Amino acid sequence: QCNLAGWWENDLGSKMHVSEVDSQGNFFGEYYTAVSSAQKPIKPSPLVGSQHLDEDSQCTFGFTVNWKFSDSTAVFVGQCFAGEGGEEVLQSTWLLREKVSNLPSNWKATR
Amino acid sequence: QCNLAGWWENDLGSKMHVSEVDSQGNFFGEYYTAVSSAQKPIKPSPLVGSQHLDEDSQCTFGFTVNWKFSDSTAVFVGQCFAGEGGEEVLQSTWLLREKVSNLPSNWKATR
Amino acid sequence: QCNLAGWWENDLGSKMHVSEVDSQGNFFGEYYTAVSSAQKPIKPSPLVGSQHLDEDSQCTFGFTVNWKFSDSTAVFVGQCFAGEGGEEVLQSTWLLREKVSNLPSNWKATR
Amino acid sequence: QCNLAGWWENDLGSKMHVSEVDSQGNFFGEYYTAVSSAQKPIKPSPLVGSQHLDEDSQCTFGFTVNWKFSDSTAVFVGQCFAGEGGEEVLQSTWLLREKVSNLPSNWKATR
Repeated sequence: QCNLAGWWENDLGSKMHVSEVDSQGNFFGEYYTAVSSAQKPIKPSPLVGSQHLDEDSQCTFGFTVNWKFSDSTAVFVGQCFAGEGGEEVLQSTWLLREKVSNLPSNWKATR
Repeated sequence: QCNLAGWWENDLGSKMHVSEVDSQGNFFGEYYTAVSSAQKPIKPSPLVGSQHLDEDSQCTFGFTVNWKFSDSTAVFVGQCFAGEGGEEVLQSTWLLREKVSNLPSNWKATR
Repeated sequence: QCNLAGWWENDLGSKMHVSEVDSQGNFFGEYYTAVSSAQKPIKPSPLVGSQHLDEDSQCTFGFTVNWKFSDSTAVFVGQCFAGEGGEEVLQSTWLLREKVSNLPSNWKATR
Repeated sequence: QCNLAGWWENDLGSKMHVSEVDSQGNFFGEYYTAVSSAQKPIKPSPLVGSQHLDEDSQCTFGFTVNWKFSDSTAVFVGQCFAGEGGEEVLQSTWLLREKVSNLPSNWKATR
């Protein structure tokens, strides 16, 4: 069965640790980003999300990272796949919302 | 202070209810979507997310919706603003991940 | 029939002028943006794109704007619809690519 | 100098041919997609776009593909980089707009 619990690393060298997934599919964890667009030093940041509990190993999932070194928030959404060697691979995309000071700047807040 | 607790409605008529925000900024709630790309009837679906607890009323936030009527997952990320009449307005964008059956179909899974 | 030729204005106050659409659906024009993330003063910038030539008035289209006041490029993709009063309305989304100095910065180049 | 003219292939096996880039940075070409979300057989489709003409080899660019086997339009935006072996690599992202039959369906038209 599909389960996100454990350590994951992406192509950029960012890592995340997902602790236990509960019976609803909710999970908590910590994200250690390797990249940042903020000025301050990077800090591990908490994540909270949810996954489907499908019987196959191809569940979709999503989570939110509340950055501790900036006022920004990131969301990731993706799906688990079986890799060539049998190991699990996550494919995900993300949006990063940076805080802007007023509504007219809203258009450029998300990357 | 910025607080997402309560009812929100968007331009498409979708509604969400965010229950209490805890001291870390984590929150739970329910999303009542008005639109769907799935075949099955729409059902209220649980959401889980996180917001910054800035002193101003312009916090960024993100949350994940685990759809109960499909294998898909959506994430939303945005920011709170004060509207013209003083009321709070959320500006957000989203990604919807649909489950695909294999890795070669991954390119088209997110909208 | 669907035809993009003419002047268009969006919610942010940006305007564009599309000159003649040729028999292949290709068109040229100029984009007058009201907003910018660049330091230099805004200048009108050329656009080039393509539209479908469907018989209904609901064609999809896309175009590229080559900003003259920055090293960035924007693309827009959308569809024409008939508005409530019978006039044509364009619904589009966009991506803005900012030039970054090296490959490790690629992740943050697009918003 | 940065020049997109020639053949390019992406990770999915899609290929494109960009013919000459003119003195304004405009170019035409043909896109041979390896993947499709449409029902009809894939056909080569014309593209039109624009690139910056920076002196370094790291220009940003964008282009529109007018699919000949569907009513959809795709836009790509990206940047050229020098790869490890000195060859040029394009990093790009895209949006695919599918034609929808009415404005209430607009929310799901882009992936």
